[in-house]
Amino acid sequence: MTFLVATLITEGKAKQLYTTENEEVVRVHYLNQATALNGKRKESVAEKGLVNNEIDSLIFNYLNESGIKTHFIEKISASDQLVYKMQMVPLEVVIRNFASGSFQKKFQVAYLKPFDRPVHEYYLKSDALDDPFINESQIQALALATPADLAVISRLAEQVNMALRQLFAKIDIDLVDFKLEFGKTPDGEIRVADEISPDSCRLVDQETHQSLDKDVFRHRSGDVMSGYRTVLDRLLAVLN
Amino acid sequence: MTFLVATLITEGKAKQLYTTENEEVVRVHYLNQATALNGKRKESVAEKGLVNNEIDSLIFNYLNESGIKTHFIEKISASDQLVYKMQMVPLEVVIRNFASGSFQKKFQVAYLKPFDRPVHEYYLKSDALDDPFINESQIQALALATPADLAVISRLAEQVNMALRQLFAKIDIDLVDFKLEFGKTPDGEIRVADEISPDSCRLVDQETHQSLDKDVFRHRSGDVMSGYRTVLDRLLAVLN
Repeated sequence: MTFLVATLITEGKAKQLYTTENEEVVRVHYLNQATALNGKRKESVAEKGLVNNEIDSLIFNYLNESGIKTHFIEKISASDQLVYKMQMVPLEVVIRNFASGSFQKKFQVAYLKPFDRPVHEYYLKSDALDDPFINESQIQALALATPADLAVISRLAEQVNMALRQLFAKIDIDLVDFKLEFGKTPDGEIRVADEISPDSCRLVDQETHQSLDKDVFRHRSGDVMSGYRTVLDRLLAVLN
Repeated sequence: MTFLVATLITEGKAKQLYTTENEEVVRVHYLNQATALNGKRKESVAEKGLVNNEIDSLIFNYLNESGIKTHFIEKISASDQLVYKMQMVPLEVVIRNFASGSFQKKFQVAYLKPFDRPVHEYYLKSDALDDPFINESQIQALALATPADLAVISRLAEQVNMALRQLFAKIDIDLVDFKLEFGKTPDGEIRVADEISPDSCRLVDQETHQSLDKDVFRHRSGDVMSGYRTVLDRLLAVLN
Protein backbone atom coordinates (compact mmCIF):
# COMPACT_ATOMS: atom_id res chain seq x y z
CA MET A 1 0.00 0.00 0.00
CA THR A 2 1.37 3.42 -0.91
CA PHE A 3 0.46 6.83 0.37
CA LEU A 4 2.06 9.05 -2.24
CA VAL A 5 -1.02 11.26 -2.36
CA ALA A 6 -1.58 11.34 1.38
CA THR A 7 -2.51 14.75 2.75
CA LEU A 8 -2.31 15.66 6.41
CA ILE A 9 -5.90 16.24 7.54
CA THR A 10 -5.22 17.19 11.12
CA GLU A 11 -2.67 16.78 13.89
CA GLY A 12 -3.72 16.01 17.44
CA LYS A 13 -1.66 15.81 20.63
CA ALA A 14 -0.07 12.45 19.77
CA LYS A 15 -1.42 11.50 16.34
CA GLN A 16 -1.67 12.71 12.76
CA LEU A 17 -4.52 11.88 10.40
CA TYR A 18 -3.84 11.46 6.65
CA THR A 19 -6.09 10.95 3.66
CA THR A 20 -5.93 7.64 1.76
CA GLU A 21 -6.98 6.61 -1.75
CA ASN A 22 -10.33 5.66 -0.23
CA GLU A 23 -12.38 8.73 0.74
CA GLU A 24 -14.09 6.81 3.54
CA VAL A 25 -10.81 5.73 5.14
CA VAL A 26 -8.12 7.73 6.92
CA ARG A 27 -4.65 6.71 8.05
CA VAL A 28 -3.72 7.38 11.67
CA HIS A 29 -0.02 7.95 12.30
CA TYR A 30 1.04 7.63 15.95
CA LEU A 31 3.68 10.12 17.13
CA ASN A 32 6.37 9.59 19.76
CA GLN A 33 4.89 12.44 21.71
CA ALA A 34 3.40 12.84 25.18
CA THR A 35 1.38 15.81 26.42
CA ALA A 36 -0.15 16.87 29.72
CA LEU A 37 -2.22 19.82 30.98
CA ASN A 38 -4.37 19.75 27.83
CA GLY A 39 -1.32 20.06 25.58
CA LYS A 40 0.48 22.82 27.51
CA ARG A 41 3.32 20.41 28.37
CA LYS A 42 4.67 18.39 25.43
CA GLU A 43 7.64 16.02 25.28
CA SER A 44 9.09 13.49 22.90
CA VAL A 45 8.99 9.91 24.25
CA ALA A 46 10.88 7.28 22.25
CA GLU A 47 8.74 4.39 20.93
CA LYS A 48 5.54 5.70 22.52
CA GLY A 49 3.81 5.98 19.13
CA LEU A 50 4.71 2.40 18.19
CA VAL A 51 3.60 0.95 21.52
CA ASN A 52 0.34 2.94 21.54
CA ASN A 53 -0.45 1.98 17.95
CA GLU A 54 0.01 -1.67 18.90
CA ILE A 55 -2.03 -1.44 22.13
CA ASP A 56 -4.81 0.57 20.47
CA SER A 57 -4.97 -1.88 17.54
CA LEU A 58 -5.20 -4.87 19.89
CA ILE A 59 -7.97 -3.20 21.91
CA PHE A 60 -10.03 -2.03 18.92
CA ASN A 61 -9.69 -5.46 17.27
CA TYR A 62 -10.95 -6.99 20.51
CA LEU A 63 -13.91 -4.53 20.61
CA ASN A 64 -14.75 -5.23 16.95
CA GLU A 65 -14.66 -8.97 17.66
CA SER A 66 -16.87 -8.38 20.71
CA GLY A 67 -19.52 -6.91 18.38
CA ILE A 68 -19.02 -3.29 19.47
CA LYS A 69 -19.13 -0.84 16.56
CA THR A 70 -15.84 1.07 16.17
CA HIS A 71 -14.00 3.11 13.55
CA PHE A 72 -11.06 0.65 13.45
CA ILE A 73 -10.12 -1.24 10.28
CA GLU A 74 -6.54 -2.55 10.64
CA LYS A 75 -2.99 -1.87 11.75
CA ILE A 76 -0.84 -1.41 8.63
CA SER A 77 2.61 -0.65 10.04
CA ALA A 78 4.45 -0.21 13.32
CA SER A 79 3.22 3.37 13.62
CA ASP A 80 0.11 3.46 11.42
CA GLN A 81 -3.42 2.12 11.23
CA LEU A 82 -6.46 2.58 9.00
CA VAL A 83 -9.79 3.70 10.40
CA TYR A 84 -13.11 4.80 8.94
CA LYS A 85 -13.48 8.55 8.52
CA MET A 86 -16.02 9.78 11.04
CA GLN A 87 -17.96 12.96 11.70
CA MET A 88 -16.77 13.40 15.28
CA VAL A 89 -19.14 14.21 18.13
CA PRO A 90 -17.42 17.12 19.96
CA LEU A 91 -17.49 15.39 23.33
CA GLU A 92 -15.07 13.43 25.47
CA VAL A 93 -16.84 10.70 27.41
CA VAL A 94 -15.13 9.66 30.63
CA ILE A 95 -16.09 6.43 32.39
CA ARG A 96 -14.85 5.85 35.93
CA ASN A 97 -14.81 2.57 37.86
CA PHE A 98 -12.60 3.88 40.68
CA ALA A 99 -11.95 7.42 41.95
CA SER A 100 -8.87 9.11 40.53
CA GLY A 101 -7.77 12.25 38.69
CA SER A 102 -10.15 15.19 38.50
CA PHE A 103 -12.99 13.31 40.26
CA GLN A 104 -10.83 12.49 43.26
CA LYS A 105 -9.54 16.06 43.44
CA LYS A 106 -12.92 17.74 42.91
CA PHE A 107 -14.81 15.69 45.49
CA GLN A 108 -11.93 14.91 47.86
CA VAL A 109 -12.56 11.17 47.99
CA ALA A 110 -10.01 8.41 48.56
CA TYR A 111 -7.77 7.40 45.62
CA LEU A 112 -9.17 4.27 43.94
CA LYS A 113 -12.41 4.26 45.94
CA PRO A 114 -14.55 1.84 43.88
CA PHE A 115 -17.95 2.96 42.54
CA ASP A 116 -21.02 0.71 42.79
CA ARG A 117 -21.94 1.77 39.26
CA PRO A 118 -19.56 3.36 36.74
CA VAL A 119 -19.57 7.16 36.68
CA HIS A 120 -20.25 8.76 33.27
CA GLU A 121 -18.99 12.28 32.53
CA TYR A 122 -19.00 14.42 29.40
CA TYR A 123 -16.53 17.14 28.48
CA LEU A 124 -16.94 19.56 25.59
CA LYS A 125 -14.00 19.21 23.19
CA SER A 126 -12.88 22.82 22.87
CA ASP A 127 -9.29 23.98 23.28
CA ALA A 128 -10.52 27.59 23.43
CA LEU A 129 -12.84 26.77 26.37
CA ASP A 130 -10.34 24.30 27.95
CA ASP A 131 -12.62 21.23 27.50
CA PRO A 132 -15.23 22.14 30.13
CA PHE A 133 -17.23 19.54 32.06
CA ILE A 134 -20.77 19.54 30.62
CA ASN A 135 -23.99 17.77 31.55
CA GLU A 136 -26.61 16.19 29.27
CA SER A 137 -29.02 19.10 29.62
CA GLN A 138 -26.30 21.57 28.56
CA ILE A 139 -25.29 19.29 25.66
CA GLN A 140 -28.85 19.49 24.38
CA ALA A 141 -29.13 23.25 24.95
CA LEU A 142 -26.00 23.72 22.83
CA ALA A 143 -27.25 21.19 20.22
CA LEU A 144 -24.02 19.16 20.50
CA ALA A 145 -25.86 15.83 20.38
CA THR A 146 -29.49 14.76 20.35
CA PRO A 147 -30.99 12.85 23.31
CA ALA A 148 -31.13 9.79 21.02
CA ASP A 149 -27.43 10.11 20.09
CA LEU A 150 -26.47 10.56 23.75
CA ALA A 151 -28.40 7.42 24.67
CA VAL A 152 -26.46 5.43 22.03
CA ILE A 153 -23.16 6.95 23.18
CA SER A 154 -23.87 6.15 26.81
CA ARG A 155 -24.84 2.55 25.99
CA LEU A 156 -21.75 2.03 23.78
CA ALA A 157 -19.55 3.48 26.54
CA GLU A 158 -21.03 0.99 29.02
CA GLN A 159 -20.41 -1.88 26.60
CA VAL A 160 -16.80 -0.81 26.06
CA ASN A 161 -16.33 -0.53 29.82
CA MET A 162 -17.66 -4.04 30.45
CA ALA A 163 -15.57 -5.54 27.65
CA LEU A 164 -12.39 -3.74 28.73
CA ARG A 165 -12.81 -4.50 32.44
CA GLN A 166 -13.07 -8.19 31.56
CA LEU A 167 -10.04 -7.98 29.31
CA PHE A 168 -7.86 -6.13 31.82
CA ALA A 169 -9.00 -8.35 34.71
CA LYS A 170 -7.46 -11.31 32.82
CA ILE A 171 -4.09 -9.54 32.92
CA ASP A 172 -4.30 -8.41 36.56
CA ILE A 173 -5.00 -4.77 35.74
CA ASP A 174 -7.80 -2.58 37.10
CA LEU A 175 -9.38 -0.24 34.54
CA VAL A 176 -9.66 2.81 36.82
CA ASP A 177 -11.11 5.20 34.25
CA PHE A 178 -10.84 6.01 30.56
CA LYS A 179 -11.85 8.53 27.91
CA LEU A 180 -13.78 7.71 24.76
CA GLU A 181 -14.70 9.72 21.71
CA PHE A 182 -17.43 8.91 19.24
CA GLY A 183 -18.08 9.63 15.60
CA LYS A 184 -20.85 9.17 13.06
CA THR A 185 -20.53 7.30 9.77
CA PRO A 186 -21.96 8.97 6.64
CA ASP A 187 -25.19 6.99 7.18
CA GLY A 188 -25.49 8.25 10.77
CA GLU A 189 -24.28 5.21 12.73
CA ILE A 190 -22.48 6.16 15.95
CA ARG A 191 -19.23 4.27 16.55
CA VAL A 192 -16.39 4.31 19.05
CA ALA A 193 -13.56 6.33 17.50
CA ASP A 194 -10.28 8.04 18.45
CA GLU A 195 -7.85 6.07 20.64
CA ILE A 196 -7.88 3.64 23.55
CA SER A 197 -4.41 3.29 25.06
CA PRO A 198 -2.50 4.10 28.27
CA ASP A 199 -2.73 7.73 27.04
CA SER A 200 -6.50 7.67 27.47
CA CYS A 201 -6.96 5.07 30.26
CA ARG A 202 -5.89 4.86 33.89
CA LEU A 203 -4.59 1.32 34.37
CA VAL A 204 -3.39 0.10 37.75
CA ASP A 205 -1.70 -3.22 38.53
CA GLN A 206 -4.04 -5.17 40.83
CA GLU A 207 -1.18 -6.47 43.00
CA THR A 208 1.27 -3.56 43.25
CA HIS A 209 -1.22 -0.69 42.57
CA GLN A 210 1.42 0.73 40.25
CA SER A 211 0.19 3.08 37.51
CA LEU A 212 0.77 1.66 34.01
CA ASP A 213 -0.48 4.74 32.14
CA LYS A 214 0.02 8.42 31.39
CA ASP A 215 -0.23 9.35 35.09
CA VAL A 216 3.48 8.39 35.25
CA PHE A 217 4.14 11.14 32.68
CA ARG A 218 1.67 13.59 34.29
CA HIS A 219 3.28 13.18 37.72
CA ARG A 220 6.87 12.71 36.38
CA SER A 221 7.01 9.69 38.67
CA GLY A 222 9.19 7.34 36.63
CA ASP A 223 9.76 5.71 33.23
CA VAL A 224 6.47 6.19 31.41
CA MET A 225 7.25 3.58 28.72
CA SER A 226 7.88 0.81 31.24
CA GLY A 227 4.18 0.76 32.21
CA TYR A 228 3.03 1.02 28.57
CA ARG A 229 5.25 -1.95 27.63
CA THR A 230 3.91 -3.97 30.56
CA VAL A 231 0.37 -3.35 29.30
CA LEU A 232 1.36 -4.35 25.76
CA ASP A 233 3.17 -7.52 26.86
CA ARG A 234 0.27 -8.66 29.00
CA LEU A 235 -2.29 -7.90 26.26
CA LEU A 236 -0.22 -9.86 23.73
CA ALA A 237 -0.22 -12.83 26.10
CA VAL A 238 -4.02 -13.07 26.08
CA LEU A 239 -5.03 -11.60 22.71
CA ASN A 240 -2.69 -13.35 20.28
CA MET B 1 -46.37 34.51 69.06
CA THR B 2 -43.28 34.60 71.26
CA PHE B 3 -39.85 33.11 70.66
CA LEU B 4 -38.41 33.32 74.15
CA VAL B 5 -36.92 29.84 73.83
CA ALA B 6 -35.74 30.26 70.23
CA THR B 7 -32.27 28.85 69.59
CA LEU B 8 -30.20 29.74 66.56
CA ILE B 9 -29.90 26.53 64.52
CA THR B 10 -27.73 27.85 61.72
CA GLU B 11 -26.78 31.05 59.91
CA GLY B 12 -26.54 31.20 56.13
CA LYS B 13 -25.36 33.99 53.86
CA ALA B 14 -28.50 36.11 54.27
CA LYS B 15 -30.73 34.20 56.72
CA GLN B 16 -30.78 32.74 60.21
CA LEU B 17 -32.81 29.69 61.22
CA TYR B 18 -34.28 29.46 64.74
CA THR B 19 -36.12 26.75 66.61
CA THR B 20 -39.78 27.27 67.52
CA GLU B 21 -42.04 25.65 70.14
CA ASN B 22 -43.01 23.15 67.42
CA GLU B 23 -40.20 20.70 66.66
CA GLU B 24 -41.37 20.33 63.07
CA VAL B 25 -41.30 24.07 62.38
CA VAL B 26 -38.41 26.52 62.15
CA ARG B 27 -38.41 30.30 61.97
CA VAL B 28 -36.45 31.93 59.15
CA HIS B 29 -35.08 35.39 59.93
CA TYR B 30 -34.02 37.40 56.87
CA LEU B 31 -30.88 39.51 57.31
CA ASN B 32 -30.08 42.83 55.62
CA GLN B 33 -27.03 41.23 54.12
CA ALA B 34 -25.79 40.62 50.58
CA THR B 35 -22.95 38.31 49.57
CA ALA B 36 -21.15 37.47 46.35
CA LEU B 37 -18.35 35.10 45.30
CA ASN B 38 -19.81 32.29 47.45
CA GLY B 39 -19.73 34.49 50.56
CA LYS B 40 -16.24 35.94 50.08
CA ARG B 41 -17.72 39.44 49.61
CA LYS B 42 -20.32 40.45 52.21
CA GLU B 43 -22.08 43.79 52.69
CA SER B 44 -24.97 45.18 54.68
CA VAL B 45 -27.88 46.36 52.49
CA ALA B 46 -30.67 48.28 54.25
CA GLU B 47 -34.15 46.69 54.01
CA LYS B 48 -32.94 43.78 51.86
CA GLY B 49 -34.08 41.23 54.45
CA LEU B 50 -37.55 42.74 54.68
CA VAL B 51 -38.03 42.94 50.91
CA ASN B 52 -36.71 39.39 50.34
CA ASN B 53 -38.89 37.99 53.11
CA GLU B 54 -41.90 39.60 51.46
CA ILE B 55 -41.00 38.47 47.91
CA ASP B 56 -40.13 34.94 49.05
CA SER B 57 -43.38 34.67 51.03
CA LEU B 58 -45.46 35.83 48.04
CA ILE B 59 -43.71 33.35 45.74
CA PHE B 60 -43.92 30.37 48.09
CA ASN B 61 -47.59 31.12 48.82
CA TYR B 62 -48.18 31.17 45.08
CA LEU B 63 -46.36 27.83 44.66
CA ASN B 64 -48.34 26.28 47.56
CA GLU B 65 -51.58 27.50 45.97
CA SER B 66 -50.42 26.07 42.62
CA GLY B 67 -50.23 22.64 44.26
CA ILE B 68 -46.44 22.45 44.35
CA LYS B 69 -45.11 20.98 47.60
CA THR B 70 -42.89 23.44 49.50
CA HIS B 71 -41.54 23.95 53.01
CA PHE B 72 -43.37 27.29 53.42
CA ILE B 73 -46.01 27.84 56.14
CA GLU B 74 -46.48 31.59 56.63
CA LYS B 75 -44.88 35.02 56.96
CA ILE B 76 -45.14 36.10 60.60
CA SER B 77 -43.40 39.47 60.62
CA ALA B 78 -41.61 41.92 58.34
CA SER B 79 -38.37 39.93 58.60
CA ASP B 80 -39.52 36.44 59.63
CA GLN B 81 -41.43 33.45 58.30
CA LEU B 82 -42.25 29.93 59.47
CA VAL B 83 -41.30 26.89 57.40
CA TYR B 84 -41.32 23.16 57.94
CA LYS B 85 -38.03 21.74 59.17
CA MET B 86 -36.49 19.70 56.36
CA GLN B 87 -33.66 17.25 55.96
CA MET B 88 -31.89 19.17 53.20
CA VAL B 89 -30.60 17.48 50.03
CA PRO B 90 -27.01 18.81 49.68
CA LEU B 91 -27.54 20.06 46.13
CA GLU B 92 -28.26 23.37 44.47
CA VAL B 93 -30.48 22.92 41.43
CA VAL B 94 -30.12 25.62 38.78
CA ILE B 95 -32.73 26.02 36.03
CA ARG B 96 -31.90 28.24 33.08
CA ASN B 97 -34.32 29.61 30.49
CA PHE B 98 -31.83 32.07 28.96
CA ALA B 99 -28.01 32.09 28.93
CA SER B 100 -26.38 34.16 31.66
CA GLY B 101 -23.88 33.91 34.50
CA SER B 102 -21.61 30.87 34.67
CA PHE B 103 -23.26 29.16 31.66
CA GLN B 104 -22.67 32.15 29.41
CA LYS B 105 -19.07 32.48 30.60
CA LYS B 106 -18.25 28.77 30.41
CA PHE B 107 -19.65 28.20 26.92
CA GLN B 108 -19.11 31.71 25.48
CA VAL B 109 -22.65 32.12 24.21
CA ALA B 110 -24.62 35.36 23.82
CA TYR B 111 -26.13 36.94 26.95
CA LEU B 112 -29.83 36.01 27.21
CA LYS B 113 -29.72 33.50 24.34
CA PRO B 114 -33.01 31.59 24.89
CA PHE B 115 -32.99 27.80 25.31
CA ASP B 116 -35.52 25.58 23.51
CA ARG B 117 -35.83 23.54 26.70
CA PRO B 118 -34.76 24.70 30.17
CA VAL B 119 -31.23 23.69 31.20
CA HIS B 120 -30.97 21.78 34.50
CA GLU B 121 -27.72 21.85 36.48
CA TYR B 122 -26.74 20.48 39.88
CA TYR B 123 -24.08 21.84 42.22
CA LEU B 124 -22.84 20.08 45.34
CA LYS B 125 -23.45 22.29 48.37
CA SER B 126 -20.01 22.32 49.97
CA ASP B 127 -18.20 25.47 51.07
CA ALA B 128 -14.99 23.43 51.45
CA LEU B 129 -15.18 22.25 47.82
CA ASP B 130 -16.56 25.62 46.55
CA ASP B 131 -19.94 24.17 45.42
CA PRO B 132 -18.67 22.18 42.43
CA PHE B 133 -20.81 21.48 39.35
CA ILE B 134 -21.86 17.82 39.52
CA ASN B 135 -23.77 15.51 37.18
CA GLU B 136 -26.40 12.90 38.00
CA SER B 137 -23.99 10.00 37.65
CA GLN B 138 -21.57 11.62 40.14
CA ILE B 139 -24.47 12.41 42.51
CA GLN B 140 -25.29 8.70 42.58
CA ALA B 141 -21.66 7.62 42.93
CA LEU B 142 -21.37 9.86 45.99
CA ALA B 143 -24.79 8.68 47.31
CA LEU B 144 -26.04 12.28 47.58
CA ALA B 145 -29.49 11.39 46.24
CA THR B 146 -31.11 8.27 44.81
CA PRO B 147 -32.18 8.14 41.16
CA ALA B 148 -35.81 8.21 42.39
CA ASP B 149 -35.18 11.32 44.53
CA LEU B 150 -33.41 13.04 41.61
CA ALA B 151 -36.36 12.31 39.34
CA VAL B 152 -38.74 13.94 41.86
CA ILE B 153 -36.39 16.91 42.29
CA SER B 154 -36.09 17.40 38.54
CA ARG B 155 -39.89 17.22 38.04
CA LEU B 156 -40.54 19.65 40.92
CA ALA B 157 -37.93 22.03 39.49
CA GLU B 158 -39.72 21.94 36.11
CA GLN B 159 -43.06 22.64 37.78
CA VAL B 160 -41.62 25.58 39.71
CA ASN B 161 -40.08 26.93 36.51
CA MET B 162 -43.36 26.74 34.60
CA ALA B 163 -45.30 28.35 37.45
CA LEU B 164 -42.76 31.14 37.96
CA ARG B 165 -42.34 31.90 34.25
CA GLN B 166 -46.11 32.38 34.02
CA LEU B 167 -46.12 34.57 37.12
CA PHE B 168 -43.21 36.76 35.99
CA ALA B 169 -44.54 37.02 32.42
CA LYS B 170 -47.64 38.73 33.89
CA ILE B 171 -45.41 41.44 35.35
CA ASP B 172 -43.21 41.89 32.25
CA ILE B 173 -40.20 40.09 33.70
CA ASP B 174 -38.19 37.26 32.13
CA LEU B 175 -37.12 34.53 34.55
CA VAL B 176 -33.59 34.08 33.15
CA ASP B 177 -32.43 31.44 35.65
CA PHE B 178 -32.82 30.52 39.30
CA LYS B 179 -31.49 28.26 42.03
CA LEU B 180 -33.61 25.87 44.07
CA GLU B 181 -32.88 23.70 47.06
CA PHE B 182 -34.89 20.73 48.21
CA GLY B 183 -35.51 18.99 51.50
CA LYS B 184 -37.22 15.88 52.83
CA THR B 185 -39.98 15.81 55.42
CA PRO B 186 -39.67 13.25 58.25
CA ASP B 187 -41.90 10.89 56.20
CA GLY B 188 -39.62 11.20 53.15
CA GLU B 189 -41.59 13.63 50.98
CA ILE B 190 -39.36 15.89 48.89
CA ARG B 191 -40.38 19.55 48.90
CA VAL B 192 -39.05 22.84 47.54
CA ALA B 193 -37.20 24.55 50.39
CA ASP B 194 -34.74 27.39 51.03
CA GLU B 195 -35.45 30.74 49.32
CA ILE B 196 -36.79 32.09 46.03
CA SER B 197 -36.04 35.80 45.69
CA PRO B 198 -33.92 38.19 43.59
CA ASP B 199 -30.99 36.74 45.58
CA SER B 200 -31.55 33.34 43.94
CA CYS B 201 -33.13 34.31 40.58
CA ARG B 202 -31.98 36.30 37.59
CA LEU B 203 -34.90 38.55 36.66
CA VAL B 204 -34.74 40.86 33.65
CA ASP B 205 -37.30 43.48 32.63
CA GLN B 206 -38.77 42.39 29.29
CA GLU B 207 -38.78 45.96 27.92
CA THR B 208 -35.58 47.54 29.23
CA HIS B 209 -33.56 44.32 29.78
CA GLN B 210 -32.54 45.81 33.11
CA SER B 211 -31.43 43.34 35.81
CA LEU B 212 -33.80 43.35 38.81
CA ASP B 213 -31.75 40.91 40.90
CA LYS B 214 -28.47 40.24 42.70
CA ASP B 215 -26.45 40.72 39.49
CA VAL B 216 -26.66 44.46 40.29
CA PHE B 217 -24.83 43.71 43.56
CA ARG B 218 -22.44 41.20 41.94
CA HIS B 219 -21.44 43.68 39.25
CA ARG B 220 -21.69 46.79 41.50
CA SER B 221 -23.75 48.30 38.68
CA GLY B 222 -26.26 50.40 40.63
CA ASP B 223 -28.74 50.49 43.49
CA VAL B 224 -29.44 46.82 44.18
CA MET B 225 -32.61 47.52 46.21
CA SER B 226 -34.28 49.47 43.41
CA GLY B 227 -34.64 46.29 41.32
CA TYR B 228 -35.76 44.22 44.33
CA ARG B 229 -38.47 46.81 45.14
CA THR B 230 -39.64 46.83 41.51
CA VAL B 231 -40.05 43.05 41.66
CA LEU B 232 -41.95 43.30 44.96
CA ASP B 233 -44.25 46.11 43.75
CA ARG B 234 -45.11 44.25 40.55
CA LEU B 235 -45.71 40.96 42.41
CA LEU B 236 -48.00 42.74 44.89
CA ALA B 237 -50.01 44.14 41.97
CA VAL B 238 -50.87 40.64 40.68
CA LEU B 239 -50.78 38.45 43.79
CA ASN B 240 -52.81 40.44 46.31
